[in-house]
Amino acid sequence: MQVDGKHYRSIWPLADHSAVEIIDQRKLPHIFEVVRLEQLEDAATAIRDMCVRGAPLIGATAAYGVCLALRTDTSDMALARAVDLLQATRPTAINLKWALSEMIAAVENLPREKRIEAAFQRAAEICDEDVELCRAMGRSGFRLIESMWQHKGETINILTHCNAGWLATVDWGTALAPIYMAHDAGIPVHVWVDETRPRNQGAHLTAWELGKHGVPHSLIVDNAGGHLMQHGQVDICFVGTDRTTASGDVCNKIGTYLKALAARDNGVPFYV
Amino acid sequence: MQVDGKHYRSIWPLADHSAVEIIDQRKLPHIFEVVRLEQLEDAATAIRDMCVRGAPLIGATAAYGVCLALRTDTSDMALARAVDLLQATRPTAINLKWALSEMIAAVENLPREKRIEAAFQRAAEICDEDVELCRAMGRSGFRLIESMWQHKGETINILTHCNAGWLATVDWGTALAPIYMAHDAGIPVHVWVDETRPRNQGAHLTAWELGKHGVPHSLIVDNAGGHLMQHGQVDICFVGTDRTTASGDVCNKIGTYLKALAARDNGVPFYV
Repeated sequence: MQVDGKHYRSIWPLADHSAVEIIDQRKLPHIFEVVRLEQLEDAATAIRDMCVRGAPLIGATAAYGVCLALRTDTSDMALARAVDLLQATRPTAINLKWALSEMIAAVENLPREKRIEAAFQRAAEICDEDVELCRAMGRSGFRLIESMWQHKGETINILTHCNAGWLATVDWGTALAPIYMAHDAGIPVHVWVDETRPRNQGAHLTAWELGKHGVPHSLIVDNAGGHLMQHGQVDICFVGTDRTTASGDVCNKIGTYLKALAARDNGVPFYV
Repeated sequence: MQVDGKHYRSIWPLADHSAVEIIDQRKLPHIFEVVRLEQLEDAATAIRDMCVRGAPLIGATAAYGVCLALRTDTSDMALARAVDLLQATRPTAINLKWALSEMIAAVENLPREKRIEAAFQRAAEICDEDVELCRAMGRSGFRLIESMWQHKGETINILTHCNAGWLATVDWGTALAPIYMAHDAGIPVHVWVDETRPRNQGAHLTAWELGKHGVPHSLIVDNAGGHLMQHGQVDICFVGTDRTTASGDVCNKIGTYLKALAARDNGVPFYV
């Protein structure tokens, strides 16, 4: 999405594949700093220290971490070591495990001299696939907002928790993709951004990315959402998910459950 | 309750009635500072700037504010001015309005030379009555904890939001009184203290007063309570109230509603 009028993804390789660049999300919203990852350890540290976070972006970063490892050593042993190291960086994100499996499958049966190129290609595909998934989620959610707007005829107020925006994915975001699409389509939207204690991802990341893209929003404390719903100030909720079970149960950032209960109590549609 | 082994109330007059002392609650938990209120304006500022807060303590401070005003000028006009000034300091606390009415009733029909003494006497009564009300609430809630403990046989985990402890009243507190009584009676209790954004009264005040009295507790972010309830880590909730309607509806600190919904969803008793 847009940062000061320029389009960014949250991760991208250099053209010569000598490194990968990310945004150091720990420094947002105060400093927008692009960091270069040159080796496997850089990628592992970026995930572990939460320079990057959000399940899809963690997966993409891990995929590129495998690429960087292979640049140093294309052996099976180096591949296994990279996967083990990256797998241990974060426990919650299923995308991490999935992306590493994809990377193994993409290179393990290739001769060593073809592994680097194949790895970069698969990592780029993982990123592009994630963008398309987010775009599809965005289109799906956009229709909800659009139909709500056709009915209400004025600003649609949307509550979100944590950061499930483009910074958590490769682009668009999951929960925020519909909001960006609605905004870009000229539908008046306003976003209630939960602060999201204890790490304040709403305050540090969601408010920042919405602001940079020009989407009207208000930062609120996590306690406020229920009160806003009671007073008709929330039309719809969109949140992300770390894991979703086959039966539809969701594991997501602490506090999501409280907002889901409030939405139910007030008849506010709640989408994950 | 106890602070470093010494008993304190949250407000007390000097023996010669030349001033009233309070704890500057804005500086807690880092600095325990007693502040002297010598004039009407000191009392108004103490309420307005939240040196004191909590509905009962606001009422008590306003009552003593009237006393301090009368020390300077015992006229009807001075009395009316003091009441008007104090009434405007905080909108939420019903105790403020009530205490001011009590003070007017206590002095308005007296000759001017008897007003100061009568005012200090009524203010002291207001404080003592508040302590007795809290003690009665404590005894009532104590029986709930005691019976829960007899059934469970191990530590009773109690969740509370904001500060409804002795710092919010004159002594004992409202929501915390049962907890202090259970602790003092040797029943093992542990308190989950909501941080209570945006002003952090849980982190700054409730955790401090529980700690000073020796009650085991854990400070948690406001988002965590629902998760703890889902996992059976909360046996009972106690919170305060700013206003309670005849039908039992409660207005209290932002976020109380979210915890009430979570308690209901998990079958956890929730007492106001």
